This record gives sequence, C-alpha cells and structure tokens, in this order.
Amino acid sequence: MASSSSFSTCTLHGSVSGPKSMKCYREFIFNCSSLFKQSSNPRLIALCADLTQSRFLSNVKSINLEQSGRLLPINRVQCQALKVENKISFSVGNKFQLNDVIEAQQFDRDILSAIFEVAREMEKVEKNSAGSQILKGFLMATLFYEPSTRTRLSFESAMKRLGGEVLTTENAREFSSAAKGETLEDSIRTVEGYSDIIVMRHFESGAAQRAVATASIPVINAGDGPGQHPTQALLDVYTIEREIGKLDGIKLGLVGDLANGRTVRSLAYLLSKYQDVKIYFVSPEVVKMKDDIKEYLTSKGVEWEESNDLMEVASKCDVVYQTRIQRERFGERIDLYEEARGKYIVDWAVLAAMQKHAVVMHPLPRLDEITVDVDADPRAAYFRQAKNGLYIRMALLKLLLVGW
Amino acid sequence: MASSSSFSTCTLHGSVSGPKSMKCYREFIFNCSSLFKQSSNPRLIALCADLTQSRFLSNVKSINLEQSGRLLPINRVQCQALKVENKISFSVGNKFQLNDVIEAQQFDRDILSAIFEVAREMEKVEKNSAGSQILKGFLMATLFYEPSTRTRLSFESAMKRLGGEVLTTENAREFSSAAKGETLEDSIRTVEGYSDIIVMRHFESGAAQRAVATASIPVINAGDGPGQHPTQALLDVYTIEREIGKLDGIKLGLVGDLANGRTVRSLAYLLSKYQDVKIYFVSPEVVKMKDDIKEYLTSKGVEWEESNDLMEVASKCDVVYQTRIQRERFGERIDLYEEARGKYIVDWAVLAAMQKHAVVMHPLPRLDEITVDVDADPRAAYFRQAKNGLYIRMALLKLLLVGW
Amino acid sequence: MASSSSFSTCTLHGSVSGPKSMKCYREFIFNCSSLFKQSSNPRLIALCADLTQSRFLSNVKSINLEQSGRLLPINRVQCQALKVENKISFSVGNKFQLNDVIEAQQFDRDILSAIFEVAREMEKVEKNSAGSQILKGFLMATLFYEPSTRTRLSFESAMKRLGGEVLTTENAREFSSAAKGETLEDSIRTVEGYSDIIVMRHFESGAAQRAVATASIPVINAGDGPGQHPTQALLDVYTIEREIGKLDGIKLGLVGDLANGRTVRSLAYLLSKYQDVKIYFVSPEVVKMKDDIKEYLTSKGVEWEESNDLMEVASKCDVVYQTRIQRERFGERIDLYEEARGKYIVDWAVLAAMQKHAVVMHPLPRLDEITVDVDADPRAAYFRQAKNGLYIRMALLKLLLVGW
Repeated sequence: MASSSSFSTCTLHGSVSGPKSMKCYREFIFNCSSLFKQSSNPRLIALCADLTQSRFLSNVKSINLEQSGRLLPINRVQCQALKVENKISFSVGNKFQLNDVIEAQQFDRDILSAIFEVAREMEKVEKNSAGSQILKGFLMATLFYEPSTRTRLSFESAMKRLGGEVLTTENAREFSSAAKGETLEDSIRTVEGYSDIIVMRHFESGAAQRAVATASIPVINAGDGPGQHPTQALLDVYTIEREIGKLDGIKLGLVGDLANGRTVRSLAYLLSKYQDVKIYFVSPEVVKMKDDIKEYLTSKGVEWEESNDLMEVASKCDVVYQTRIQRERFGERIDLYEEARGKYIVDWAVLAAMQKHAVVMHPLPRLDEITVDVDADPRAAYFRQAKNGLYIRMALLKLLLVGW
Repeated sequence: MASSSSFSTCTLHGSVSGPKSMKCYREFIFNCSSLFKQSSNPRLIALCADLTQSRFLSNVKSINLEQSGRLLPINRVQCQALKVENKISFSVGNKFQLNDVIEAQQFDRDILSAIFEVAREMEKVEKNSAGSQILKGFLMATLFYEPSTRTRLSFESAMKRLGGEVLTTENAREFSSAAKGETLEDSIRTVEGYSDIIVMRHFESGAAQRAVATASIPVINAGDGPGQHPTQALLDVYTIEREIGKLDGIKLGLVGDLANGRTVRSLAYLLSKYQDVKIYFVSPEVVKMKDDIKEYLTSKGVEWEESNDLMEVASKCDVVYQTRIQRERFGERIDLYEEARGKYIVDWAVLAAMQKHAVVMHPLPRLDEITVDVDADPRAAYFRQAKNGLYIRMALLKLLLVGW
Repeated sequence: MASSSSFSTCTLHGSVSGPKSMKCYREFIFNCSSLFKQSSNPRLIALCADLTQSRFLSNVKSINLEQSGRLLPINRVQCQALKVENKISFSVGNKFQLNDVIEAQQFDRDILSAIFEVAREMEKVEKNSAGSQILKGFLMATLFYEPSTRTRLSFESAMKRLGGEVLTTENAREFSSAAKGETLEDSIRTVEGYSDIIVMRHFESGAAQRAVATASIPVINAGDGPGQHPTQALLDVYTIEREIGKLDGIKLGLVGDLANGRTVRSLAYLLSKYQDVKIYFVSPEVVKMKDDIKEYLTSKGVEWEESNDLMEVASKCDVVYQTRIQRERFGERIDLYEEARGKYIVDWAVLAAMQKHAVVMHPLPRLDEITVDVDADPRAAYFRQAKNGLYIRMALLKLLLVGW
C-alpha cells in the first residue's frame, strides 16, 4: 500500500461511484463516513471516528480515490489522508500511523518510543491469554525471494504468537512464477489476494518500495538487498534501550564491517534521533564507515570518532556492537579478508575492559568475531537481541493489522 | 479415493468382518448403517441418513468392501455407491457428490452452478465468523512434486481462511523419499495417514488419477504435467459468470498459445456445457488450437471460428482470454518464439475496441502479452480472476470435507 | 536442554539473584517454590508440587543454577534434579521424566509402556474434541538440516492434531545462516527464542546431543546422520505391541541391510528390554549385522541367530522386519549392490510361509524389497506402522510440553 510516514489509508467495501481520481475534502469524508458506519470492520469504524474528528479533518491535504466505477465482486475505494501534522495519537483503538514498514527513516522518536512500549507488552503475552489471539483470523504471507531462515522464523513466530496464520514461500525467487518472468508487481497483486499482510525479503534494493506502491495491504520490508532492513534496526535500538535503560547520552562502539553492513548504517541513522549520542567506529581499513553516514551524523549533531583501539573503546562504551566481516565482499582477495576478520575480536580481554553495565551486541550470525567464551557473560546480549526481534515484529504486526 | 463423478465413498471405523471383496446390497447397507449409528463422526452420520433413504438405496449398483478381516488398530471398510442417477441434492448437510477433483470433465452444469453458489458464499466469509471455522480440525497436505507458488498459496490460504490447517511440501520431487525411489502410491499411502485431504501437483500426466486410486482420503489435482488443472478451469468459468453475469450465450476470444496451454483446452471443454457459446481462436500459426478440441466443440454444438484479427474479435467478445506463449515449448527455435510472442498483444488499442461490459482474462503469470497500462482499466479482470481461485478452492475444500 | 534419562528441568521466569553456579538443596527448593507459586504457568506449578513433595526432594542429588545475576528482560534459572530413583509416576498432571528425546537408550521398559498408553489415547483424539487442543498456544520448530519429508510431516501433523503450531525449515543446511558458517549451537540459541520445542534432523551423528546441551527448551532428535532416530525405534516397538499384542516372547526376523540401517540397530537395542525375545538376522553377506549389537544382545540374554533361509525364518516369526538396501553405501560397486538387493525379497511366497497372526514391517520408503502384491494382505503392517509414527510423536510432544 503506498504510504509515507504520515499517510492514513482505508479500504472501503461496498459499492461507491465516482470519477477515477478525485480530490475531495469534507464532502468525500462525509460519503466515506456513512459507508464506514455500515461496515462491521472495527478498523474502519475506528478510522471513521478519526475522520469525523475536526482535528483530523483540518489536516487532510489530499484524498485520493481509486475506484473502478463498476460493480466488482467487492468494490474497493482507497482514500489516503496525507500529512496529519497534529500530535499523533498512540492510544489504544487508534489506527497505526504507518501503513507499511519500508525503511528506518520512517520512524521518528515519538513513534519509536510508542512501538517499544507495545513491544514490551508483547514480552508479557502469555500462551492462551486474550492477548495471544489478537491476530486470530489474519493471514501473513512471507514472500522471501532470498532465504533468511532467522528473519523468516522470527516473523512467523511473531504472527503465530498472536494467533495469526502464515503462508510461507521460503525461496520465491527459484520456485515461483518469478522464474517464468513475472514482475514483482504482478506477484504482489496475486499474493495480496490471498493474505492480509505481506512480509517480503528481496535481493534487490528498492524492491520493498515497489511492493508497497502496488499492494493494497500492508507490506513489511524484511530486507531488500543491500538496501534496508528496518525491523533489524528497530530491534537493535529496542535492545539498547532494554539493556542500558536509555537512548539519550548513549556511547556506542560499532566494530567490524562498517562499509557493507546495512545494519550498522541503519543503526547510526536511527541513533541520530537521540541526544548526546557518541559513536566510535572501529574497523579494518578496507571496510571503514563511509563518508555519507559520517556527514549525516555530523549534520545531526552526533559526535563520532574513528579508533584503532578496541580495548579503549570497549572501556568507554555502553554498547560494543560487533559485526561479521562478510567474505563475499572480498572476491578473490582472501588475504585481505583473512587480515580484516582477525583484526577486532571481542573476547574475554575486551569483556574485562568493559564496564559492568555495558553490553555486547551482534546482529548474528556470528563466526569467530566474538569468541564463544563470551556467551556465558551476562553482558553478552546478542541472543537476547535476537529474541527482541520477536517482540518488535509482534508489535509491528499488531500495529499494522489492528492499530494501537 | 477411487471415484467417478457419481461415486459416494464412506470410511467406516469399527470392527467389521467379511470377505475381502464382496458385492452386497441391502444386507450390507443394514450392517453399514448400524455401524454408522455408533459413530460420532458427523460425515458418517450424514451419509448414514442418505444410505437409509430409499432414494439412495434404489440407485445403489455396487458396493465394494475392502476389509482386512482382522482386528486392526482402526478397521476401515470402504463402501462405494455408484451411479446415483436421481436428481442430485445440493442442500446443506448433504454429502458432496464427488470424492476427489481430478479433471474438468467430472463437472456437469448443475454441479458447476452449485459449486459457484458455494464460492459466492465463500466471498462473504468474514474473519472470526462461524463460517471462517468450518474446517477447524481438518488438515490438508499440499504435496507439490513441482513448484507452483501461486497455486499452492491459493490452496493454503483457502484452507486457512476456513479454519483448517496445512502440511506443506514445496518441492516433494527433490526433497522427499521420491528421490530414493519410492513410488507415488507409497508416498500417498503415507501422507494420507497424516492428513484429511491431499492437494497434489505433479509433473506427470495421470499422476492425479493414480493418487486417487490409492488414497482413502479426498485428493485434489492441482495440476498434473501437461494433463489437467481442474481448479484453474473452474475458477475461469466462475470468473466469466461473475464478471459477465451469464454463461449461456457467451462470446469468448481465446488468444495466444492454444496448442500447449492446458488452461484454454479445459476452458473450451467446460464451456461446451453451456448454450449458444461462440469461441474465437486467435493464435500464431505455430501454436494453433488442435483439432481434437475443435471437433469436440463442433460435436457439442459450440460455434467456433479462427481469426487473425484480434481487434475485430475483441470488439465482438464478452471475454478476451489471453495466454502466455511458453518459451520452453520452442526449444532452440528462439526466432519462432520471438515471432509468436509479439503477434497478439492486448494493449490500450485492443481495450478501446472492446465493449464496455467485456473483460480481459489471463491465467497468470503474464509477461508482456498484456501491457501493464491495461491493468488500471476496470475491464482488466485477471487479478480478480486470481482471487476467484481462492473462493473456488475454499468451496471445493468445504464440499469435499464437510459436504453442502 | 541438557538431560539424561532421569533429569527434571524447570525454567523460572522472574527475577532471582544468586551465584552463577551453585549447589543447593532444600534452601534453593524453597526459593524456587515460592517463585513457582507466583507463576501462572501450569508446568511450573505442577513441578512446584513435585518439588515440595518429600519423595522428590529426598532424591535430589544436584541442582545446578545458571543465572546471570542481573535483571534481564526475562530472567531464567535452570534447576535440574538428577537421579530420581523412586518409582516414577506416570499419573496425569505429573511432569514427564524426560526433557528431551535424543536416543533409544533413554527409555526403559516402564516408560516405554507408559508412552505407549499415551499413544493409544492419541489414536482416539477426535477432531475438535478437548483432547485435540492440549497443545494450543505451543510452537514447534522443525529444524531439518537434511530433508526428510516423511518424518517432518509426521511431526508437523502430530503437533497440529493436538492444536499446536509449527515453524518449518525444510532445508536448514542450504538456506539458513548455517551456510554462512554459524554453529549449530548459535542456531539453536536463536530458534529456542522463537519456539517452545525443537524437532531437529541433522546430517551429523551427535548433533542432537549438542543441540540438547545448548537448548533451554525440549529437543527431539528426528535423526542425526548415521546416529540415532529414536522416534522411529519407538514407533517400531509400539507397532509390534499393537499388531502382535505382546513384546515379551516375541520372535522377530530382521531382514536386509543390517549393517547400515540405524533402524534395525535401535530396534534390537530396545527389544533387549523385553523377556524371551528371539531375533533372526537375514541379510546379504556384505551388510551383515555387526558384532557390537550381537554382543550386546548376548549380554542382555536375548537369543539371536543368523540365517540364509528367509522362508524358514518367516514361518517361525511374529514379525518379519524388512529394510531397504541403501545404494549409496556401495559407492561404485553397483554389482555388489544389485546382488545384495535382489537376495531377500518379501513376496507372496514369503507371506504364504508366514503364520496367520504374523506381520510384515518396514520403516519405508521401500523400493522392491517388498513386492506390491503383498500390500493387500492384512499382514502387511508397514503403512499402519507409518501411521503409528503419528501417534508416538503426538504422545512425545504432549509429554514433553505438558506432562502426563
């Protein structure tokens, strides 16, 4: 579903007539609302309440009506309310401000904090409680054009922990009609007919944006090539807050492959939304953090510093965020790869240098950039971090499908 | 389960003695019925009611009892009532007339119309309504010996939309014990022990028939090689009725690969059951409709005509049914493929020639035989057609598992 | 979860302080119990009852407390009560004596008999009965590092027949982060965060043991390379009891590949727990039963005998257990393979020699070592045997997740 961070979209079921594309304000809202009132869909009714409140109406800049003008099996009218500039409401029963999750940039500080609150509720969802059934009757399609067992299982577990159901395509690229030359757009149009939300992993940067532009149901980007992996970025920030207890004033050491890892780039981006953040970059020369992020951080007032001394950085930081050096980035230069991967290892010596309250994070999978003897230390937060992915995804599925 | 379009099969649970194969009439029915009465299975009880009604009894021609003659963990007796020639009953609570879905030829006009009525009910099934739970407790196994993401997801969505559960084998050919040389029959005998209905896709023509001959639970053919794909044929006819509002008197243009597409062949076959149907064949010379179908249509009184003029055909038809030219059929003659695929494209010009009430259909996936600018026109029915596959499959699953 | 056949493990949720590893007895039990009492988890409450009974306490030899000493999102304390030597209790509501299913050797005669009783109850679980929902809210992860459609579907069907849900990885070796070099231990630590029980198939012997040593949730070994496949061994013994009505005094002919088949080795092992068992080995010279098992049987008082005469053995046995000669074991010596596989075939002649009450078993898949005409005979028990796998797996899932 096409969206930006301040879109609201609703889908009307019923028979509506009108020109194919129109700009309309109060008159349309009126028609819209009376249709909503005939609906038994709680999301529509909730949105209807929104629409009829002046707070909302006064901010509507554009409403876009796509409509076929004929009696279809189910007529669909999409109306999108752009740029609601008033204070967003996160109260229970209200619609989520986002229709899709495409990139880390969508999230501002307020919405992050509200999502984290929902994630914390998700940690408390008990088996067979009412909370464990809030997505009953909803179907999620996991459309994975490249395999990622960890991410897929995490989303599928999240959906099932909330009572929802899952349609799985573990390797859509090889198996699906994509192999016969079907466009992503056509595949999305088919799959949206079978499900209520699409979680997509793709090998091409920008694929999530294309899916969103096509789909009339919510889409979550579960990684698109070297592009974005927004739910990883969210779970990283959530983990920092959960482990350290704060985000403002945080001191973070980013270690390892800073050039190619989308994880560290997204994380740097999100942390710039908080105050008094200090970031240390510790990486082999060949995989140094690129200038665009450095410039971005500077422009946002985030202090950063490059260092070759992991021990010293470890002793200062709240979080040592280690990453894997990716062999596939080095082509035939195995010598460079071997040199890079051995350079900064988090081991007992690094742990010993770290403060008592500090933690080690890692997006996983890890090879030997963190030695296994570190695992037993309570400051090894990476498996808790993986588990937090479950709660963040539960929160996002809940928010996109039933709202706050 | 072995079947023809007028079989009724029941499976008895209990301890029954008898010769290994016997022909029996009223006496058997009597034994049979008393066993049913001890059963708590609602399907058996419903069938029991059928069996004891004279309407049914008077038409029983043969009952086949397979029985092991020993006390098994669960004894199974199969009895099949052949050739019920009276008017079939489609009332709620009655058993479906078919045990399996193997080929389009199974369906006559009456049963098609009754299935379509159920499909229309399926369109109205709301999340968390009673209707959304009618298959609760049932397990469907999707046994796919060749991948077909679209068809598989459609069936799995259908099952889950009705509260049922799914066991998936996305690539049974490569992964299963088939790779070790197990016969299809043995695989079916194993899988039927784990599930209540089997949806099978296979690379060999006739595989569905073999599965049905083995299985004691319903089997749906989700495509067997170049053979049949009956649920696609059903959803095509359903879509025509849904979009145009009638089937008698319909004018249909079949465009593209008419030689190799099982879709268009099955469709031609099914349409012959309706009156005053006119079919236009529009295809490159190399992939023309074959004589067997032409002769069949003629014998059934269906008017047909070949044409090179897509624009003229488009202007006369209710439905322009476009298909993909399949590259794999041309081997190394890429030149012939390129010539064929560019010949008849449905674009804005064709749309402009079409009548207002007419629609464009396509079994999908499409490449460029329909240009993407056609998608926005309300007469582009192909994504609605894909969605109708969901409703048809919901209807068939309901009918095979719980009856009318 | 680390375990031996007499371990009891519990996981505490709550905030507990304590040294990282400690030996503690009554004092710990006391703290432990008061935490349990705050819990709403029925497993914890049930265990709490156990812990406070002197029968249990008096047998506790060691309790191992792993604890991080800090407030984690969810604090976990593991306590393991070793070597409960009193008579084990199989009453409803009590915890299962095992935390994991790793190898056939875990099971003694009493526990086998108790598991079989639960399996028989599982045969009677009706759709939509209360019994069909006992695992509602539980999530099973099927982590298959090598494909095995039969075993996977059997476990997934078992879980779903009891109302549980499933996360599937059909080919974890190729698709998962294992391909990037992640250790099994790390994968387990991630997956345990998403699920309540792990069913793992692996290509390496000993992998199950490693998974169990890592996981804090139950693990079932669904086959680890040439090592163990304990649920197959259990279903085999269950089938013998179900078909013949007894295990003591049973006469069994093991036919085919006795050198490489883990099935026959585990079966021989388990049967040694019963009295007056007689085993005949009938196999081509190249794949004869190895000496370790022969010596083991002798040491346990099990009579065994080698024979070249399948007909004679068949006439004496209660069970003829046929196995597949595995081509992959012969490398390039196709000639030896062809000679071996044709040597002992179970066909109508063998059936004719068998006693009326005797049965033919086979772990499946079969090629032609049992001719298909045998299938129709009631003594062909192999498809019932496959189905019994469902009941055994339902029983184990129930026992590991909710207890007796």
